[in-house]
Formats: sequence, C-alpha cells, structure tokens
Amino acid sequence: MSNIRHALNVKRADDFARWYQEVISAADLAEESGVRGCMVIKPWGYGIWERIQRLLDDRIKDTGHDNCYFPIFIPLANFEREAEHVDGFAKEMAVVTHHRLIQDGTGKLVPDPAAKLEEPLVVRPTSETIIGDAMARWVQSWRDLPLKTNQWANVVRWEMRTRMFLRTSEFLWQEGHTAHADAAEAKAHTLRMLEVYRACAEEDLAMPVIAGEKPEHERFPGALETWSIEAMMQDGKALQAGTSHYLGTNFAEASGIRYQDPDGVQQLCHTTSWGVSTRMIGGVIMTHGDDDGLRVPPTIAPRQVIILPMLRGKDEGEDTALTEYCESLRAILAGQSAFGEKLRVMLDTRPGKAAAKRWDYVRKGAPVIIEVGGRDMDNDGVSLLRRDALWTENGKANFLTLSRKEAAHMIPELLAEIQRSLFDQAAARRDANITRDISDMDALAEHFASGKTHPGWAEVQWSRPTGATLDAVVEKLKQLKLTVRNVPMDAAPVDGACIFTGEPAVQRVYVAKAY
Amino acid sequence: MSNIRHALNVKRADDFARWYQEVISAADLAEESGVRGCMVIKPWGYGIWERIQRLLDDRIKDTGHDNCYFPIFIPLANFEREAEHVDGFAKEMAVVTHHRLIQDGTGKLVPDPAAKLEEPLVVRPTSETIIGDAMARWVQSWRDLPLKTNQWANVVRWEMRTRMFLRTSEFLWQEGHTAHADAAEAKAHTLRMLEVYRACAEEDLAMPVIAGEKPEHERFPGALETWSIEAMMQDGKALQAGTSHYLGTNFAEASGIRYQDPDGVQQLCHTTSWGVSTRMIGGVIMTHGDDDGLRVPPTIAPRQVIILPMLRGKDEGEDTALTEYCESLRAILAGQSAFGEKLRVMLDTRPGKAAAKRWDYVRKGAPVIIEVGGRDMDNDGVSLLRRDALWTENGKANFLTLSRKEAAHMIPELLAEIQRSLFDQAAARRDANITRDISDMDALAEHFASGKTHPGWAEVQWSRPTGATLDAVVEKLKQLKLTVRNVPMDAAPVDGACIFTGEPAVQRVYVAKAY
Repeated sequence: MSNIRHALNVKRADDFARWYQEVISAADLAEESGVRGCMVIKPWGYGIWERIQRLLDDRIKDTGHDNCYFPIFIPLANFEREAEHVDGFAKEMAVVTHHRLIQDGTGKLVPDPAAKLEEPLVVRPTSETIIGDAMARWVQSWRDLPLKTNQWANVVRWEMRTRMFLRTSEFLWQEGHTAHADAAEAKAHTLRMLEVYRACAEEDLAMPVIAGEKPEHERFPGALETWSIEAMMQDGKALQAGTSHYLGTNFAEASGIRYQDPDGVQQLCHTTSWGVSTRMIGGVIMTHGDDDGLRVPPTIAPRQVIILPMLRGKDEGEDTALTEYCESLRAILAGQSAFGEKLRVMLDTRPGKAAAKRWDYVRKGAPVIIEVGGRDMDNDGVSLLRRDALWTENGKANFLTLSRKEAAHMIPELLAEIQRSLFDQAAARRDANITRDISDMDALAEHFASGKTHPGWAEVQWSRPTGATLDAVVEKLKQLKLTVRNVPMDAAPVDGACIFTGEPAVQRVYVAKAY
Repeated sequence: MSNIRHALNVKRADDFARWYQEVISAADLAEESGVRGCMVIKPWGYGIWERIQRLLDDRIKDTGHDNCYFPIFIPLANFEREAEHVDGFAKEMAVVTHHRLIQDGTGKLVPDPAAKLEEPLVVRPTSETIIGDAMARWVQSWRDLPLKTNQWANVVRWEMRTRMFLRTSEFLWQEGHTAHADAAEAKAHTLRMLEVYRACAEEDLAMPVIAGEKPEHERFPGALETWSIEAMMQDGKALQAGTSHYLGTNFAEASGIRYQDPDGVQQLCHTTSWGVSTRMIGGVIMTHGDDDGLRVPPTIAPRQVIILPMLRGKDEGEDTALTEYCESLRAILAGQSAFGEKLRVMLDTRPGKAAAKRWDYVRKGAPVIIEVGGRDMDNDGVSLLRRDALWTENGKANFLTLSRKEAAHMIPELLAEIQRSLFDQAAARRDANITRDISDMDALAEHFASGKTHPGWAEVQWSRPTGATLDAVVEKLKQLKLTVRNVPMDAAPVDGACIFTGEPAVQRVYVAKAY
C-alpha cells in the first residue's frame, strides 16, 4: 500500500481532526463564512443535505406527519414557562433587541435606541415552546389527536467552539413535534421516530448506528425520556446522530395543550419531539471518508455517476465525437433507476484536464467515475473507477475496462453494491472496536488512556445510579473525557455488577469519547 | 345564482380584504403566531409552498444553478459598504445584540450585559452582501464564470403593518445570485430568470403575469435594472410576484468580486439577483379564490384528488365494503400520472360526516372531490365534484355521476383541464380590466376615483421622466394611491404623449393600486 499517493495531504491516522477539515475543504462541502460560528454550505455539501432531506422527509410523511412552518423568533416569556427547559437552553442564544438601524453620523450603523423592543426575541434554538402554543390552539378534543407535525428550519445556538457540520452556531435541521392522548401512545411514537432515524442513518447514509435510551443525566431539558442513535466515527469516538424525546406532560402543562376526552373531561396531552440536523453530514464524512477524501453513499450522492470525456482541445472533430459518445451513455444511464429513483448522472465537459477533474471527483466522493478517452471510444468501451475500490495493489487507479453496453447496464446494481459495501465496512469496523470485557473503573481508565488511537467504545454493565451516586460517576467519567452514550435496545441480558457502583447491574451502556 | 349558499361568510365583492383573511382561515393555510409580524404556516398552506418550491427549484436547476446555504446573520459592516443598499435596507431589520440570557432574580430572563456582541448582527433581509463575500472568494479567473447560486431561506424585514403571506416580518423565499464576466451576459441572465418566474407563475400557479422593467424609482436598492412579474388580483390591484435585478458592478465593487480575464487583467464582475417568496401564495389566493374558499391549481395542490367514502358508522360491514371500494379507486389513481408526476390522491376515512368534510375540502380548494356512498357503490359508480365548477344553475353542488372506471381514467386529463380553466378565467378577467384609453392625469384620477370596486390597471404612455420631474409624477400618483407597476416587454409601440409630462412618450407603463 505504500506506493499509493493519496489525494489528501493529511491521513486519518496522523491527525483525524485536521483530516476532517481537509475533507470538507477538498470535497468542497462547506467553508467558514466570516460570520462567527456560521458556515457557508457549498453546492456539493448542500446537495448531500438536499438528498438527506428528501429521503428523510418521505419517511416522516410516511409516518403521518405534515410539514408546517413556525416563527424563527421566540418571545422570552415562552422560555420562562418551562423551568427545566430554561435551565437547559436559556444560556447561549442569539437575542434580538432592536428592530431598526440608524447612521451614527460617522458613516457607521448602530441599533436605533428609539427602536428597542419592549420584549427581546430569541432566535429559536429549538421550537418546543412556540409549537406548544400552536398545539394549544389546534387541539381541542380527543378527535384532534394524535397531532403530528414536522418542520425543516434553521436554528441558532451560540457556540463558543465550533466545528463545521458538527457544532455551528446556526445549523439546519428538522424538528418533529407530536401530541398524543396518553403516555403509552406518546412513548410508542418516540420509539417509532427513533426507528425512522435508524433506518435513515443505516439505509440512506449507510451509517451503522446503535439505538438506545440516554441515561437520565443526558436527557433533553424537560424530557422524561431521551433516545438516540449513536454512530462510531473512524477515530473511535461516538457521534450522536439523532434524538427522540418523550416529553411527558411537561410542555403540555407549560403551553396549555389540553383535550377533552370522550367523557368530556379535560386532559393534558403527552408530547414528543425529535430532530436530526446537518450534523449528519459530519457523520457521513467521519464514517465513509478515507485518505483520498469523501466517499458519498450512492443514495445520498448529489451525482452518482460522473462521465468524464478526455477532451484534448486539439482536434475539434475528435472532441465532438468523444462528447457525443459520452452523451449517448449519459442519456442511457439517465433513463435508468437506482434505489427506486432516476439515476443521477452528470457529463462534465467543462474545460480542464480529465485527470485533474477525476481527482476532484475522487475527493468529492462521487460513487462512480467513468472516463472515456479516444482509445476507449475506438473499442466501444469505457474506463470505470469505483470510489470504494480506488486503488490496485500496486498503487494505481483501479480502472475497470468495460464495453459501453456493459457499463450502461451494470450501474444500478453496482451502486447498490457500493452502498452495501460502505455500510458493511463501517459496521465491521464498529463491531471490531467495541470492548465488552471491562469489569471495573480502573480497567476502563486504562483502556481509554492506553494511548491507542482507536479505543472505540466500551459496553459495560450499569446499575442505573441516581442522585449523588450518579453525579460522582459522571464526574469520574468526565475526568477520563468519557460519557455514557446510551442504553442499547438490543443488548445482551446483564449478568454482573455495575462497573461504577459495584451494585447489581440492570442495564448495559456504551461508554465512549464523543463529539 | 341567488340560490347558492356559499361556503364562506364574506364575499369578494363585499369586502375583499376580509374575504382574503377568511380564505386563509377557512382553507387552513396559516394563522397569526402570537409573535409580532410572524405567521404559522399550516399543513395545507405549507404543502402548497412545498409544491411551488419543488417546481421552481427544478426550473432553477435546469438553468444551471446550484443550491447553497449562507449564514442567517450579516455583520453591520456588510451593510455599510454599499451606500444605496444601506439607504434601501438599513432601516427596519431585526438586530441581534446579545448572545446570552440570564435570570434577573425575579424569575424573568434578560439579555446578559456581559454577553453583548462587539458588533451587532442583522438577521438577513436579503443576502447580496454576504453572498458577495463568498463570491469574492470563489471567483478568481474567467474560468470560474458564470457563477450561478441559489438559496432557499427565511428572511426578516421588520414590518409595521403585516398581512399574511403578503407582508410578514419573516417570510420564506429563494434568492438567486449570479456573477458574470460582462454586462451583456448578466443582463441576459436577469431576463432569463424573469422568464423562469413568468413560466412558474403562469404554468405552475396558473397565474397570468405581465413581465416588464420597473421604472427607475422602483428599483431594488443598488440595482441598475429591476424587472418584475405583476399579477392582477381579483380586486384589480397589482401584486408584484417576483423580481429579477441586474446589479451592474455595484455589489461586485463593494464586495471585491473580481476575476482575471484571459489577458491577465483584473475585472469587476457583473452580478444579478432575483427572488420569489411565500407572497406567491397570497397571489394564488387572490387570483383563484372564490366565495367558497380557495381553488388550488392542480399542479401545486398538495392533494389533487380527495376520495370521501360516506361512512355511516352504523353498519360495520357496509363501512368496510365502502372503504375497500374507495381504496381500490385510490390505488388505481395513485398509479397514474398528471403533469409528469405521480397523481396525489388521498382517501379520507377519518371520523366525521362526509358532507362536512366535503365542504372543508371545498374551502381548501382541492381540485377534485370524489364522494362515494352506498348507492354509488351498488352501481359501481362515484360522484365527482370539480372545484372549479362547483354549482349547478339552481344552486346545488354540481356532482357528476360516473362509473368507477370512467373516474379512474379521466382524472389526469380533468386535472389538466382544471389547470387551463383557472388560467383562462384569470387571464380573461385581467384582460377585461386593463384600460388603455386614458390620455391625461385627470382621466387617470377619475378612472381610479370613480368608486368602481374594480378599476383594474391602466396602460398609459410614458416619457420616462427623471429627477425632479419624476419626483413630481411619483408624488401625484401617491396622492391617488397609485404606482407605476412596470414597462411591459410586449407592449404596443408608443404613438402619443406621456400622460404625466406631455412629452413624447417612449414607453408604455402599467399604473395600478398595488399590494
């Protein structure tokens, strides 16, 4: 493998954080905007987000939700109503205090003191409280339930240390909010949406995840239960990729979401909320990226197949013939389907050397690159590069030579194979990096302090401590820079003592470093 | 017609403004949010927006644009750079001054004085300046041009008097921004996107529009040319439904968008911007609504066909048979296409009387409602209601009785017919309400002051006055509550004097009251 001259300057093994930044830049996904904590999402990055949106939106609509849109501004009074929610959120938020600017006389603009808002407005960090107000208006009777809404929106949480896609002051997400007649139905819905997220992560993003419940101290502010999907990144850290919350009647009480039951009695609703964000793109990068850049799973690739004619700009007749040859392949491919949708194929005839363009698309992670030179055309063939199998054993680009007809017909199945292969690689890596034989705190500390670049996750037994005992455990973990990720739904039965408290275990939990 | 008992309480002819509000409420499109100037867009209203988005996004991508996402916050310094833009925009905007809240000790939250921003941020009213910054980074050489971007986003312009969809402090829109090597290409692109808007308005929204250039005094702040599409509402007022701006080198100069030409010389780019917003939904309401509620053109209807079984809740066997009968129709229809997309059909089996549900869908404006009762089923038939032909001459709901097979096969063509019919009605009404024989100011004043509920538009001759002369004309028009809408692209040649200045005319313009 040492012969390979990789397309990035930084290798994952050498400096994962710097590699992450380089992928974002080399794949042209996003960049710093110059506005504190906010990024510019560029076409290839936004195209991936549009694909995730489209696929997840279909899943959300299939489970009976309608999309709505709620105001970006939330009055302060809304935050004052739900005590725990305030504590959790009322810290770092963007606060609007004026509604006009004026010139200060020196050519500078300043907020107009005469246009100060009576009550400041907060740019939404999440919309529980404002949607709660709407639900209180919309729900009157048991016949109005369940009420299932979703919104795609931007939200702002003022972050001191930002990292593109993973933690930015402004990010894009969807937030679902539902109201139900009783706890059982609301809890079932919380899990149903968790399953939607699992399916989206694993089937659309080819990103294996562990679905489970967050421990008490990691709950969303105001929630009774918080569930998450957690993915293992290539540095062994966990990424929380989506959460689903059962909110009990806390928000219903704060917002007055009540219904008249069939007996004419007023009851509080049980509500849920759940969201995933542009953070998922960070997960895709750290799950599928390699030392040559990003590898985008075909289901979410803005373009699945790139056709690159090797135009030479010398002989116009030859270039025209080559372009026509490629265009006919493009047309055939564009008429085909993969994953139940039209194939997304692009013929790139822009000026520039084909080899340079090839490496651009390698770094972007286009799943299949088809190059066509004069010799290919003479043989009625093409040269095909799979992004997930880029190199030969001796460090050359691993081109397959195919007839044009073969290429035209194998692509849908090839894309499905690439999708499976990306998932399988990630799942195998994750499974190989879960440690299950840790039985006390010292062993845990040693495992994570061993200097291994990839300590992965530890699945350990847990007595579900509370109160001061829990605080002590959290503090110990914090010193090791570890957190309890979640209680996996499909764990083996417990058979021993909690590694933290020594008490009989009641659950298994994943412990890991996390983003 | 006097026998008809319409589904709304207010008629267009009686109080158009109140009628507009009632349609929004009766069709369940949107509602006041409780947050000043912001609305909640409800499922049926947001569903229409999603349709407009999807269709327009395809058109924008077909013209070679990529979607991106830029920050919601814009530093004040950006506004200070482009003088005209400041004058036009630096007034009513939401200004973020703090990034944290604290408890004030009495249970209330207040902005934390310790978390005051060094430089306030503005919630974007439009993104020319922040996208200009990005373009300055992205454009280096003539090879990078044209650069064509688009973004779908929320924007905020603090409005004192708001009206749902037409003027709200927060609204949703798309804003396209492009950079070109020279004026000719940029101007051509400005017109190309105007044509995209015309096609979207007329073909997707069935809303006839006049495309033309705005007079100098109605230009976007900082633009050299502003073009618009203008639609006539049913009260005769004009609605500006979309604008496209040629910005010359003004924003390029302010942001430093320069390229090296093939000779190695640094040149300023010529830029364009163009946008349409949720305001278009207001246009759809006031173009197609009638005294029974909204009529949604089939291309943008969230559901094109509603199937309502007349379930009686008495005989379970009968209800089940009816539901199965309707489901088989739904499945057949869902397998068909209209306008090149899958037909959007819904079977509504929720509890409630079929007649009450029918009128809900009438008010929402679903294009086709199919009701099925026991007798229909016995005859293997259905009863079909066209929303655009709702009443018989004697004031009854105008049901067509059809066999199920006929219904299953006629729908795609019926939807196309409804789409055409809505456009034709609106175009005929518009054309009948344009006055072309006004030759002086007095006649203009008389026409619009005549107490007619529907004075429509006047097409008059115009000498393109400037400076103080223009100011005087604008002032006169203002007294009559009139504005110059645009200079239509396809007007007849001029053949007389300007009605304002008496000078030889050089153009024809539309004059109207406007939203």
